[in-house]
Amino acid sequence: MALAQRLHQLEVPTREPGFTRLNELLNAWIAGTGIQQGVLHLTCLHTSASLTINENADPRVLKDLQAWMDAVVPQDGQGPINGNGERTRYLHDDEGDDDMPAHIRTALTSQTMTLSIDRGHLLLGVWQGVYLWEHRANPQTRRIACHVVGEPQEDQQAKPASTAQQSSSTMLQRLSGTKLNQAVQARFDPNAWERDGGIDTDVDLLIDRLHELTDKGSA
Amino acid sequence: MALAQRLHQLEVPTREPGFTRLNELLNAWIAGTGIQQGVLHLTCLHTSASLTINENADPRVLKDLQAWMDAVVPQDGQGPINGNGERTRYLHDDEGDDDMPAHIRTALTSQTMTLSIDRGHLLLGVWQGVYLWEHRANPQTRRIACHVVGEPQEDQQAKPASTAQQSSSTMLQRLSGTKLNQAVQARFDPNAWERDGGIDTDVDLLIDRLHELTDKGSA
Amino acid sequence: MALAQRLHQLEVPTREPGFTRLNELLNAWIAGTGIQQGVLHLTCLHTSASLTINENADPRVLKDLQAWMDAVVPQDGQGPINGNGERTRYLHDDEGDDDMPAHIRTALTSQTMTLSIDRGHLLLGVWQGVYLWEHRANPQTRRIACHVVGEPQEDQQAKPASTAQQSSSTMLQRLSGTKLNQAVQARFDPNAWERDGGIDTDVDLLIDRLHELTDKGSA
Repeated sequence: MALAQRLHQLEVPTREPGFTRLNELLNAWIAGTGIQQGVLHLTCLHTSASLTINENADPRVLKDLQAWMDAVVPQDGQGPINGNGERTRYLHDDEGDDDMPAHIRTALTSQTMTLSIDRGHLLLGVWQGVYLWEHRANPQTRRIACHVVGEPQEDQQAKPASTAQQSSSTMLQRLSGTKLNQAVQARFDPNAWERDGGIDTDVDLLIDRLHELTDKGSA
Repeated sequence: MALAQRLHQLEVPTREPGFTRLNELLNAWIAGTGIQQGVLHLTCLHTSASLTINENADPRVLKDLQAWMDAVVPQDGQGPINGNGERTRYLHDDEGDDDMPAHIRTALTSQTMTLSIDRGHLLLGVWQGVYLWEHRANPQTRRIACHVVGEPQEDQQAKPASTAQQSSSTMLQRLSGTKLNQAVQARFDPNAWERDGGIDTDVDLLIDRLHELTDKGSA
Repeated sequence: MALAQRLHQLEVPTREPGFTRLNELLNAWIAGTGIQQGVLHLTCLHTSASLTINENADPRVLKDLQAWMDAVVPQDGQGPINGNGERTRYLHDDEGDDDMPAHIRTALTSQTMTLSIDRGHLLLGVWQGVYLWEHRANPQTRRIACHVVGEPQEDQQAKPASTAQQSSSTMLQRLSGTKLNQAVQARFDPNAWERDGGIDTDVDLLIDRLHELTDKGSA
């Protein structure tokens, strides 16, 4: 039973500033490697796009994340308001006003990331999505190095992830949370909250119920 | 001599926004695995709490870190002051005003982290504490995936970490620094600086001496 | 064919707040280990300096990154402007006004980082430099733990990194991009843009051409 490694480069097209969920792409590639337990190392091979993990259910979370970046790392050619209430023009502006803020946003998030693989899948919390965060204004093709170190199927022994002090009621809550989260995502409509005025859409109601069920496993 | 892996989920209770030091919990778990040299991969399985490494001695550092987040990622339901001096309300507010800032604070810090293990312990600088940073206002139970890849005790060969150009005087300074840092932490009283007006507490004096001794190994 | 590991501590002197490129130091150390394919884990063993990946060509990018930090994590002894337009003095100021902002800047960037090694070299994008980011005002000696897990030369099998859907024209673009990027860096003069008024220096022209050639492989 020896550890093996596989290295791959994933290409991900992007259209505009925002988030592309990678969970499914990564799990599909992991399945192809036959690795059952191991670690996945990701490197975003660019300096104006980055990696992050955040909520996978309510699209408003991603909009608010983007809005924070727009406020504190402005895209109008000038830096943020400093301690004296002043702003300074970026020096590096040859590629347009969206380029320098893209480099800063990359520095504030993750350029590399390591995740665990258990039973052939990424080990993530119920609410976690792994995202490529595009920071440039125009469409791009981004490459992400995916490097797995782990044990292939033939060699795999029963070595489940254990949780200290995990009560059966917590397990039940988590199971319910996972199913509801899947329902949220299956019915996911990123425009619903805008169309319905942001109040009591199906997704909202499911998310409310999900939070009630999983208050110990809060996002 | 083959590399092996172990995967575990640590549960950490939190009470309020702030820092829970993980060094001791992690070293205790590592000791149980018998791994002498290897790497430890951590994933915080939540989207409103995160991982970070920062100073382990003066509690005011952690208070100032929290204050920075409170200023730039506000918790009053509105985003930060943007380049035009304006603020915008968060869209995602179903779970209270502390929730969306918690997601942003998570994005600005680390969701995953990889540390080296040498001689059965985490390899860290004298001043480094590994922290779970809770961003939600109410008590939570947080899970952290701990995944070690390394060589167990039976197989271990003498392979000490080497430091290029490490002079014996640097080693001595480091040794003194480590001992003093242990003394700082043994006598650690997070409320001392408040009670004593923040001036010349025992911890302050020890920290001053520690900095004098380790000016090459600055935090 | 078994995976092996090597652990080392690199010492890097710094002079002032700013960036020290590590690519060459890291590749030289990797060459010495004989590892052909594997992963490199880096830990910056300090709490007032950190790791980041950003553009390796135009020095103005690094100046703008530093300027952003100076604006949002001020070094005049007070925190940033909060949602109410107010500022608060840092509590931790025993070591000077540059110390607490250095801890905050460390928290906002990377304390640890994992990179892939392929064919004996770091696998990075054309535009990517790996940097130690010094946040203290005075000269320091910084230590970085370098931990490689991978396959040494003797055992190495042909296992090139593959890129899904990689067209030959993309490969050509990338090749041209790499050569031009090398030319940019060979002629790199960090003071040229200041001396020449920032307009149409040799580096500027090369960078423009590089961007035209690699618009799919954008930084």
